[in-house]
Order: sequence, then structure tokens, then C-alpha cells
Amino acid sequence: STEGFVQSTSDGSSKIRLGGSVNLDSTWYSAPSQLNQDLNYPLQSGVSLRRAVIELEGTLWNSIEFAFKADLAQSTDLQKSPNNPQPNVFFTDNWIGSTDLFFPGRIRFGHQKNPLTFEAATSSKNIPFMENSAAYDALNDNFIYLTGISYGNSWWDDRLTLYVDVAKPGSRTSVFSVSSDGKVAVLGRLHGFPIYNEEEQYWLYLGGGYSAGGQINDQASVYARPLIRSGSSFQTPFLVNTGNLFSESSNQAFGVGGFAAWGRFALGSEYLGSYLPNAYQNGLPGTVNSLALGNLYGQGFYVEALYFLTPDHHPADKIAGGLGRVKPVSPLRPLREDTGAGSGLGAWELAARYDRLDSGRNYPGWGSMASWTAGVNWYWNANARMMFNYVYTQLDDRTSVNGSMQALGIRFAIDF
Amino acid sequence: STEGFVQSTSDGSSKIRLGGSVNLDSTWYSAPSQLNQDLNYPLQSGVSLRRAVIELEGTLWNSIEFAFKADLAQSTDLQKSPNNPQPNVFFTDNWIGSTDLFFPGRIRFGHQKNPLTFEAATSSKNIPFMENSAAYDALNDNFIYLTGISYGNSWWDDRLTLYVDVAKPGSRTSVFSVSSDGKVAVLGRLHGFPIYNEEEQYWLYLGGGYSAGGQINDQASVYARPLIRSGSSFQTPFLVNTGNLFSESSNQAFGVGGFAAWGRFALGSEYLGSYLPNAYQNGLPGTVNSLALGNLYGQGFYVEALYFLTPDHHPADKIAGGLGRVKPVSPLRPLREDTGAGSGLGAWELAARYDRLDSGRNYPGWGSMASWTAGVNWYWNANARMMFNYVYTQLDDRTSVNGSMQALGIRFAIDF
Amino acid sequence: STEGFVQSTSDGSSKIRLGGSVNLDSTWYSAPSQLNQDLNYPLQSGVSLRRAVIELEGTLWNSIEFAFKADLAQSTDLQKSPNNPQPNVFFTDNWIGSTDLFFPGRIRFGHQKNPLTFEAATSSKNIPFMENSAAYDALNDNFIYLTGISYGNSWWDDRLTLYVDVAKPGSRTSVFSVSSDGKVAVLGRLHGFPIYNEEEQYWLYLGGGYSAGGQINDQASVYARPLIRSGSSFQTPFLVNTGNLFSESSNQAFGVGGFAAWGRFALGSEYLGSYLPNAYQNGLPGTVNSLALGNLYGQGFYVEALYFLTPDHHPADKIAGGLGRVKPVSPLRPLREDTGAGSGLGAWELAARYDRLDSGRNYPGWGSMASWTAGVNWYWNANARMMFNYVYTQLDDRTSVNGSMQALGIRFAIDF
Repeated sequence: STEGFVQSTSDGSSKIRLGGSVNLDSTWYSAPSQLNQDLNYPLQSGVSLRRAVIELEGTLWNSIEFAFKADLAQSTDLQKSPNNPQPNVFFTDNWIGSTDLFFPGRIRFGHQKNPLTFEAATSSKNIPFMENSAAYDALNDNFIYLTGISYGNSWWDDRLTLYVDVAKPGSRTSVFSVSSDGKVAVLGRLHGFPIYNEEEQYWLYLGGGYSAGGQINDQASVYARPLIRSGSSFQTPFLVNTGNLFSESSNQAFGVGGFAAWGRFALGSEYLGSYLPNAYQNGLPGTVNSLALGNLYGQGFYVEALYFLTPDHHPADKIAGGLGRVKPVSPLRPLREDTGAGSGLGAWELAARYDRLDSGRNYPGWGSMASWTAGVNWYWNANARMMFNYVYTQLDDRTSVNGSMQALGIRFAIDF
Repeated sequence: STEGFVQSTSDGSSKIRLGGSVNLDSTWYSAPSQLNQDLNYPLQSGVSLRRAVIELEGTLWNSIEFAFKADLAQSTDLQKSPNNPQPNVFFTDNWIGSTDLFFPGRIRFGHQKNPLTFEAATSSKNIPFMENSAAYDALNDNFIYLTGISYGNSWWDDRLTLYVDVAKPGSRTSVFSVSSDGKVAVLGRLHGFPIYNEEEQYWLYLGGGYSAGGQINDQASVYARPLIRSGSSFQTPFLVNTGNLFSESSNQAFGVGGFAAWGRFALGSEYLGSYLPNAYQNGLPGTVNSLALGNLYGQGFYVEALYFLTPDHHPADKIAGGLGRVKPVSPLRPLREDTGAGSGLGAWELAARYDRLDSGRNYPGWGSMASWTAGVNWYWNANARMMFNYVYTQLDDRTSVNGSMQALGIRFAIDF
Repeated sequence: STEGFVQSTSDGSSKIRLGGSVNLDSTWYSAPSQLNQDLNYPLQSGVSLRRAVIELEGTLWNSIEFAFKADLAQSTDLQKSPNNPQPNVFFTDNWIGSTDLFFPGRIRFGHQKNPLTFEAATSSKNIPFMENSAAYDALNDNFIYLTGISYGNSWWDDRLTLYVDVAKPGSRTSVFSVSSDGKVAVLGRLHGFPIYNEEEQYWLYLGGGYSAGGQINDQASVYARPLIRSGSSFQTPFLVNTGNLFSESSNQAFGVGGFAAWGRFALGSEYLGSYLPNAYQNGLPGTVNSLALGNLYGQGFYVEALYFLTPDHHPADKIAGGLGRVKPVSPLRPLREDTGAGSGLGAWELAARYDRLDSGRNYPGWGSMASWTAGVNWYWNANARMMFNYVYTQLDDRTSVNGSMQALGIRFAIDF
């Protein structure tokens, strides 16, 4: 079952679903000790629970929808508690909304995803690499979930979709946000599928998004973690890390790109940029040691190619504007001689990606980061898969230590 | 479905239910800055997850019952951890019991609700205002959940109900309590429905409760939060706050009142009082700075009126002695031209309340608090609703700053 | 239902199960005050939630299995946070595996149970005493869950089972482990049922296990808690406690024993030993105050007898090599005069155990611990039971205070 536990009313107009997903990652790193010591925390091989998500979703009377999701994977991550409380249950989707209730479109109130790009809009259940690109991590992840109000609508058989939201900044990891300044973040995204033929398994996505004010002053940092991660969040170092940046202006971010699939092939590339005017280190002017950095511009992109060795394909999620769920033609199963049912090997896929992040300045710990990722994805069936990723990352333009590192990761992923 | 996920044995004698509820609150405050600075934490507008409850309940062989409920909403609330650990998962109902097993009545062992009043006995799923009255918050909430043993029984078609329990004090937010002194809390409540006609939609409730020892010495404080709350618990200020009070005697509390409904109308009022003999500030005699306060008496009441604009009504939960679930006659749904099904607007209700709390003394931060609340409740269906509350609160009799504040709150509530 | 919520595909080849268990313990202690003060935390009577477990398990295509389980009972246990973060959600089973997929046997990747003995292999849902023996607590519990890879297979109608695993040490309470030293723990266990007749209700278990490297250097402590426990984990004292021990060598542990049942009777005994070469207190040589202890050998055993007063019996779980679930012949239920269904009293069992732990040295806080436990188990049905345990414990061979203590415990246990 790809559906989880579903309970419906007899007329099918209302239903609730209980689901979940678990990702178990094993990781190995190789980095020069000089580089390793320059990071805020050394790279250490390990095994960790990357995600352990509980999901409750529902539809009432065909029109009202809600979602409540929480990630328990960092439940043991209390190390940072005394000085900087780190939530140990992360709330992701927590919203109530309606679809085509009294007028066309989807309205959602609450904590929800704010994707700028195709990559960001792809559910973690369907990503083709263990982690999204470094540009996403540095320039979109900080405000990927916010608490606010969104409106979305689609036209022409969902071939064109517009999404806009207004949200409270600084509510990334929990469903609360208080402030007295009344600042808000806004985001808009327009995407479409000029070519789309599910039956013949080919489609082309084009889209772009713009966001302003997504980060609150002292969180407007640009940081990126390795593309394979291990251990509790405090144990994952930053490869690029600007530290806290301060500005009286809002940061702005935008993303644009395309993605296409044709049978077993898929190819995509996106660009992300982020602009923070009049930035300062250590605090705004008037603070001791305040250091003016001027206008900052961080940017990055990725190019990736996917190829199925088996006769499978990547569907697209037209409304979300991201990849959909792969359902292997021949799920993994042994030959059952008693029933005569044939054996299956699941779906096998090769994946390659080049991605780059440039933090915009040369400083100790800043600089740029470029990675080559090679992957093999083995989809056992629609709900279980293994991922193998090898990543070579080059750190440059830092005024401290530069160098390269390698990482190997294996993921077991189950969702239902 | 109003039931959640239910699994039954084929003969229906055993079943378990998985449910949950989510409340998402948006709040705005207006208070004079002088008053705001006098509070222990300033009032800040915000959006927060007020409740995120997981529920597991069951009946075995028609006779044995259990409930296990936990609220995850404060999962991110670790701010108070270093000095005063604040649980981030609140256990509410966690008990095992039996109904009419070998003799009449309900016995429950474990962590359970100890309501003194009709208001306290009403589930948060069915309350007509976003928060209970300040008197409840100050004088009953501190021991609303305790770990112990309860017995309840009802007579005359559940028109009369007696409830008694013995519990360990100080186990409000978690299902554990250790101590070497052996002190216990006791509570008794008697309530009935002299008039009750579900078909004609009218009923009259009368009842009262008494409790002793519900608070342990240094937690016998009287405090009340705003009637609209925002943010994590450490971010919610106390409008009335006696601080920790110390006494070698047990505190005693009692509540009495009535509630009536007649079709679209409902009207209720209750009084709560709390008595703490020989109280001290800063510690018992022998402690440095111990300050004798004598006998303390705190009290409060509420009067509220509810009126449905649509042909709906509030049922009563006879055994619990509180409000039941509103099931709108015409649930919210758009006109479906394809099926011919008519549209619906849900149930709409106007609500008004006046409530008052008097902490019994004039001190900095103590004093009294009176609030006028005006509300609109929009029940989409039996499982989803929106609440709009405007609250005007007057703080008086404080020897520090007095004044008034206003608050506006919107809640989205889903339960299943 | 003994099954919880189960969702299956129409052909039955795939299913997921949602279950849980709750244990609510009430405890009373009696110990000389001199002994009580010698413990790291005084014994205090109380009521606490011993377990509150959420379980998700599944089988996909008859061959792929997964389990995800977490215990929320210590959610409120943040007391140790500032200096020594104590996870408040304990992950237990978190693995993905396969059975007879392309070759015979069970492979599991992830966080899983590593039992050395019959007692350790028995699920907490089926244990006949409130807690396992002190020898288990001191010598196996520290690494009962680790993150790694296991292989198991059974032959001759599951009458013989071999289990081996390789795991990362130090991952007892969470599903992550990082390190740079690459050390691993290994475990092997062989057990069988030379006699087994489920129909006639008799069986004989024999088995043994060996483990090396299960504890990381500074966690190779030998400690044992009381056989009835109360309160949050930081409130449970250690009766035997060696403190942190340091060694450059791996600790080794082994267990061996037998268990037999014949109708209403059951009888079992097992021995556990643990060896730590070249141990040091306070740190390895070179550390200030490092104190050589030489080779340490801790050991213990239990002997227990069980007898059902009702015509019930303990089944065995052949593959796990532990006790199975008791399903009372006559579940607890009152006489239903309306339906003519007869009444039932559940299953009643008497239990007795003698167990002993010797930490291997005489030191303040070390020494030996011997306990006599008398119990009554009242199984209401297959999913609910009450346990009554009386424990007399004698502490000896300590160079500080010796003496005896008594404890009384009552447990309500529900699982589904």
C-alpha cells in the first residue's frame, strides 16, 4: 500500500490518513585532517536516523484539508539545549485549508512548505539524491517551512500553477512565532509543464520563484552542510558558514530552472540567488565590533541527470511542481514456486549531479563549495528503497583552509 | 467521521481508537507599554500550535477501558530547561479502568482529569471560548490532571453523577510522581441534570466540587494567563501571579454553578474559591526572608451566554458533566452541481462572557483581573471549526501597574 | 485484538501494523535510612509511566520487513540535560530487513535488539516479573539495543536458531552513532528447543550467547537498579555502581541457561558473565588520578519458577528464544445475563525468583546484590494485565554501607 492507514466515510467525501517515513543513513567520510580541524565540528562516520516522521492528513467534505506532520528523528539531540534550545521534535506541515470551497483554488493557514524551486518542492520521499543541493541548503532551507497563509491555483489541467504566501519569518522548525515588529515574509512561485504526457512518460517543467523577508535579522546566515550527513544535528559541520549576519533590510531570494523526463531519462538544472543589502557582522551599527560587509549576494546551481536501468520512470507532481513517486514496474520479490508468481528486482537507477554554492565573499569559513555526486537508487517497491551516494566536494575561496573531501552514504528509506 | 481510526473485534466487545487534535492559534495584543513591562514577559503577537494531541483509547471485553494521550505542542519549549526542566511532551489522560465490571461504577487508575466544575469537565474539543475563564486557570488548572485512583457512578439514566478520587499531588504535567512524605490530594464532585431532554434540545446542569491537597507546598501559587495565548509556554506572561506560596497546610478549592441550554441558547455561570491557610512567601518559617501572609482566599466566577445563528445546539455530556460535541445540522460544503448535493454554511454561534479573578491580596503583580470576551464560533462540521475571540481585560488592585489590555485571537481546530 | 491496527493489501503479501504499549507502575520502598543515604539518589515511593511505546511494523511483498518503535515515557526527563543530555524519546527497534528474500534467513539493518539470553530475548510485553534480573541490568542492558547489521536463521521447524550481528557500540538509546575509531561490537547466540510440543504445552529451551566490544570505553560500567523502579530515570538510584571504567581492551560478555515449561509450570535459570581486561578508574593511564583495577569480572544468575492457578500456560517464541504471549483461556469479563455469556476471571499466576549479581570487587558502592522476588500476575486477557511484585534485596561486599531493602510494585500493562 502506498497510502498508509486510511479511514473514509461511506460516501468517500471525508477521509483521514495516518502515515510515516523513516530514513536510516550510514555514512563514511574522508577529509584531510587540516580541513577537518578547520570545520566547526569534525566529520565523523556514523549511522543515524535521518528522518522519523509521523503524518496525519485528511480531507473533510471533499473541500477542507489538513495536515499534521512531525519529525522525531532529532529527539535525542539535546546537546545544544542549555544555551541555544534546539527543538527535538520538528513540526513540518501543520495546516488547515480548503480546495475550491467557495471560489477556485487552495487556501492554507498554518505551518507549510514554501518552495522556491522544483528541487525544494520535491518531497523527501521522492528526492533522487540523499540530500538536496548545497545551494538549496544555504539559500532556501532556512525558510522552507514558515507559519502563514498561502494561496495556490492551477489552470489548464494543472499545467500552470501559481503559488503565493505571506508568513511570519523565523518559524522554520516549529509552529510558533511571536514578535512585536510585525515583519512578514512573502513568496511567489509560478511554474508549468508546457509538455506533459504521463502515458508516454515524458514531461518538461519550467518555473521560478521569488521570496523576500524569509529570514529574520540575525538568522540571515548562509551555511551549507555536507551532501551526506551523519549523527545528531549538532554533530553535522558546516562546510560553508557565514555565521550570523545582521541587516535592517530584508533578504531576497529567487530560484529559476527546468526539469525534463523522457522515459528512463531525466535531466534538470536550477539556479538560486540570495541578496542581503547592507549586511553587518557581529551586530548592527552601534553594536561593539559591528563590521560592515556591504551588500551580499550568494548564489548556486545544480545540474543533474538520472537514468533507469530498468523500464521505469520518474513521474512529475504537476501541482507541487516537483518529482512524484517512483512505482517500480517489477517490485522486488523472490520467485515463489508455490504460487508461480515471478520474481522481481525492483527499479534500478543511476544518478549524477554537479552542484555549486558561492557564498559571495572570501572569509575564514566562507568561500565556495562544488560537489560531484554519483548515485545508485534501488527502489524495492513504491514504499521502500535504498540509496547509494558518493560525493566529492571541493572547498575553495576560503581565507582559511581549502581542500577537498569525499563521502559515501547509504540510505534505507521506508514510507507509507 | 467523528471517531478517528477505530479497530473492533468482530463481536464489537473490544475496540481501540486512534485519534488526535490540533489547535492553531493566531493572536494580536494591545497593551500600554507601562503595563506590558510590568509583566514577567511582554505580550507579543504571534502564531502558535496550542495543542497537538495524540490519543489512543480502548475498551476490552465491554468492561475494561484505557486512554493514553500526549500533547506534543510544546515540543520546542526547551527554554526553561537548564534550571527548571519543562516537559516538552505533556501527558494528559493515561489510565486504565473498568466500567461495571464486578460491581457498578467506573474505576480508573493512573493519570486522569480532576475537574471541579462544568467548565473544567468540558473537553478542550468542545469549549465555546478559546480559553477557560481566569478563575479556572488560577484555581483549578494546577491540579486538573493528577495521578491516582478515581471512582465514579451515575444513577437515574445518568441524570445524577458522583465522582471521587485520591491522587498524588504535583503530577500535573507528567505521569510520574515520587515523594517520601505520603501526602495525597482528594477530590469529590456531585452533579446532575434535573432537566434533560436531548430530543427537544433543552437541559439544565447543576453541580459542585471540592478538593483538598491538590497543590504541593511550593506550587500553591495563584496565577492566571491571558485569555488568548501565544507562543511557547515560557513566552506567555502571567497577568495575575502570586509567585510561589508556602504552607504546612493543604490548600482547599471548591466550585459550584449551573449551565442551561434551550435550543439555540445556552447560559452558564460558575464560582470557584481556593483557600490556603497560614501561607508564607519566600519559604516556610525558618527560611531567610520568610514572610507570613496569613490565610489566603482567592476566588473568581464567570457568566457566559451562547447563541447559534443557525438551527444548531449544544448537547451536554451527562456523565462528564460538561458540554458535548456540536454537530452542525448543515456542514460546510460548496454546492455540487454534478451530484445535486446542496451547499452548507456550517454552524455559526455568537458567544459572550464576563469573568473575574481576585487573588485575595493587593501586591505587586497580584490583584484582580476582569475580562469581557466576545466570540464568534464557526463550526465547519463535527470535527473542524474556527473560533474568533476578542478579549478586553482590566487589571486592578495591584500595588504596581494597573491598566487594561485587549487581545484578538483566531483558532483553527481539527480533531478526529 | 492482539494485533493493533493492521492494514493489508488485498493479496495479504504486504501489511503494516500500528501498535503500542503502556506500563503504569506504582512503587513503595522500605530501606534503612543509612543505606538510602549511601545511594546516589534516595529511594522514593511513587507512580510513574514505565513505558509508553509507539510501534510501527510492516511486511512488504512477504519478504521485506521493517520496525520503528519509540518510547516516550521519559519525555519529561530533562533533569540531566545541562551536563549530560538524556534523550527523552528512546528509539528501540528501528530497522529494515528481509526474510528468505534471495537466500535463506533474516537480515536486518539498523537499530535492533542484541539479546544474550532467554530473559533478554523475551519482549517486555511478556516478562513474568516487573523487571529483568539484576545480572541482565548490569551486564547486558547497556548494549541490548545497538545500530548494526544482523543475520539470523532457523532450522528444523525453528527448533534451532543462530543469530549473529556486527554493530556500532554506544548507540543504546538512540539510532545514531558517530565515531572516528571504527570500533565495532560483535554478538553471536545459538539457541534451540530440543523438546517442543505446543499442543501438549511443554517445551525446553537451551541456549547461550557471546558478545565482545558492546560497551565503549568510558561506558563499561557495571550498574544495577532496584528490581522495582520509580520516577524519572534520574530518580532511580543504582544499588550496584562501579562508575565509569576505562580500558583499551574490549569488554566481553556471555550468557548461558535453560528454560522449561510443562503445562501450568515453568522453570528457568541463566548465568551471565562479563570480563573487562586492564580496567582503570578515573581514566586511562596518563590521566590524572588514573587507578589500575586489573582485570574485572562481573557475574550473576537467576532461578525462577512460575505456576498458573488457572489452566493457562506460557508459550515460547521459538525464533526469538524467549517467552511468548499469554492468552488466558478465560478472559476477564462479568456475567452478561442478557447475552448468556459466562463470566471470566482471567489468568492468575504465582511467580518466584532468586537472582544475584556480583560486581567482582569490594568498593564503596560496588559489591554484590541478591534479591528474592515474589509475584502475582493477573492476565485480564491477551492485551492487558496487572503485576504485583514484592522484592527483598540484600546488598553486601560493599566497603561503604551494606544492608537490605524491600520494595512493593504494582503494574498495569496494556499493549495492542
